[in-house]
Amino acid sequence: MLPIRIISTGKALPAEKISSSELDLRLNKTSGFVKKKSGVDYRYFSSVNDFQSDLAAAALRDAINAAQIHSSSIDLLLSTSAVPDQALPSMACRIMQAAGLPAGISAFDINASCLGFMAGLQLAATLLNSGTYRRIAIVSAEIPSRGLDWSDPESSLIFGDGAAAAIVEIGSETVGCQAYRMETYPEGKTYCEILAGGTRCNPTSGMKDSDFLFHMDGKKVFKLASKLMEGFLDRLFEPLGYNYHEVDLVVPHQASYLSMQHMSRRLGLPQSAIIDIYHSHGNQVSASIPTALHEAMVTGRLTEGAKVLLVGTAAGLTLGGMVLTV
Amino acid sequence: MLPIRIISTGKALPAEKISSSELDLRLNKTSGFVKKKSGVDYRYFSSVNDFQSDLAAAALRDAINAAQIHSSSIDLLLSTSAVPDQALPSMACRIMQAAGLPAGISAFDINASCLGFMAGLQLAATLLNSGTYRRIAIVSAEIPSRGLDWSDPESSLIFGDGAAAAIVEIGSETVGCQAYRMETYPEGKTYCEILAGGTRCNPTSGMKDSDFLFHMDGKKVFKLASKLMEGFLDRLFEPLGYNYHEVDLVVPHQASYLSMQHMSRRLGLPQSAIIDIYHSHGNQVSASIPTALHEAMVTGRLTEGAKVLLVGTAAGLTLGGMVLTV
Repeated sequence: MLPIRIISTGKALPAEKISSSELDLRLNKTSGFVKKKSGVDYRYFSSVNDFQSDLAAAALRDAINAAQIHSSSIDLLLSTSAVPDQALPSMACRIMQAAGLPAGISAFDINASCLGFMAGLQLAATLLNSGTYRRIAIVSAEIPSRGLDWSDPESSLIFGDGAAAAIVEIGSETVGCQAYRMETYPEGKTYCEILAGGTRCNPTSGMKDSDFLFHMDGKKVFKLASKLMEGFLDRLFEPLGYNYHEVDLVVPHQASYLSMQHMSRRLGLPQSAIIDIYHSHGNQVSASIPTALHEAMVTGRLTEGAKVLLVGTAAGLTLGGMVLTV
Repeated sequence: MLPIRIISTGKALPAEKISSSELDLRLNKTSGFVKKKSGVDYRYFSSVNDFQSDLAAAALRDAINAAQIHSSSIDLLLSTSAVPDQALPSMACRIMQAAGLPAGISAFDINASCLGFMAGLQLAATLLNSGTYRRIAIVSAEIPSRGLDWSDPESSLIFGDGAAAAIVEIGSETVGCQAYRMETYPEGKTYCEILAGGTRCNPTSGMKDSDFLFHMDGKKVFKLASKLMEGFLDRLFEPLGYNYHEVDLVVPHQASYLSMQHMSRRLGLPQSAIIDIYHSHGNQVSASIPTALHEAMVTGRLTEGAKVLLVGTAAGLTLGGMVLTV
């Protein structure tokens, strides 16, 4: 057990709420097409002038307010977005001022695609327990709407923008991370990609507008993830002496309608044990897990002693899982 | 003391070695201009077809060979580049196969600009000591040559491409990280920037070719870093009971000729105590510190019991320092 306590969570959404029927009109589709294809009722989109780092800062301020702490008590900021707002400097540096964090604290980025927040939470637990820091803020913000290929329904209609944050401290003998596991299978590294954003596609090496768009081979992702997930969960729970059927709450990555539907069956758990915000947010990339965690927090479902499973897949292809007692 | 042991290091350079006099010709400058402006004798540039992840993998294979270990014994790969090769998936996922690492291990990215490797080393120490992993590979690869503004000598002539890696395990009571500190001052967040690479500048939000170029206000960086560095070092060494004048070796970020010249004076140490590879590599962004560490390793300067200071500044503006006993 690695003691860690989530003292608060926060979230932020951009102003524009877009229903699937509005998207039908925009994309010149027949009524009901987007809802049927995506399973999303509505999602939120940023305007082209919004900064991703401001969205992150709003979520972070929400978490700071909820915790009723002074922002100067935070000594590390981890930014865990999959895609940054710009290549340099790190997003964490760009979030600090807007979130009201004091100059001089430590701040850097973690990138584990859709599982960045979970990786950040595990790192925070080890850093708190090593005594390096005392109170850590973790924030994921994503604006996938800037890089969607609207000609490809499978990899565009499911996404929504947003940000969410958590503030964590050291836990106790009964409050913390019971188990954590992350496994990457690079045979899937081309299944979800954005080719631009770094040295591969730029004005010097050559680029085209489509290099900036997210591309996914959903069938291959689903097939590989399905093949690996059961064994992965067995390995995650192996040291615990109980099975994943016995957790109280599941906070999954809100990957797709199909993945959310399969979650209950795969884990052998009632739908009521699974935080499902997919229909009202879409897939928010790395912001999905903390936004779902925030939903669990504000609806009073993180009850004392509850065993909570965070689980999901990410581009890479990566599988990640964490068992927390809260 | 956080026990960590560097069991090996490795490095990789692209094929093309460019002297400053060759660069004078390419840029149509008078003979001696580039050397005088940059202080660099030569640096290495990748061809436009080289992948940054392959450069990282080459450095990693070099470290694996040096350690005489099997690659399957590595259970976490941390990629610590400042700029990735592409926005999605993480670089770590893209490096695994090329480096011969087995599928199923954990792999993700850390971004602390030029100080990513140092942040990764500290995280590795905490992860090893929490028992999460047993042998961790850390690698930084950079291709700044793809994003230089040749019309601005100050922010272009100093850079070189390259990669370096280290493999680490848990240390002992006498081998490890004695002190670590990272401080970010976001008043400097615009002093070193690449605006493109994420959601801020892309075909949807609007972009121009110059957004992909690195821009630096060197005077402002130097002024802010100089103002902060002495106090920073005092805070870093405060828990140690000895002063930074008493370290045996300094492995600094190879930021610029000026920063390297000032290092000796600032720390009150002889030039011989400072690893200076700037003249033969230039500033390699996050790959500078591990490349300098590799230089220290292969020249036999990491002698048993030596107190080694890793120190530098990064875009952000961030100051970082670590005191290791090796």
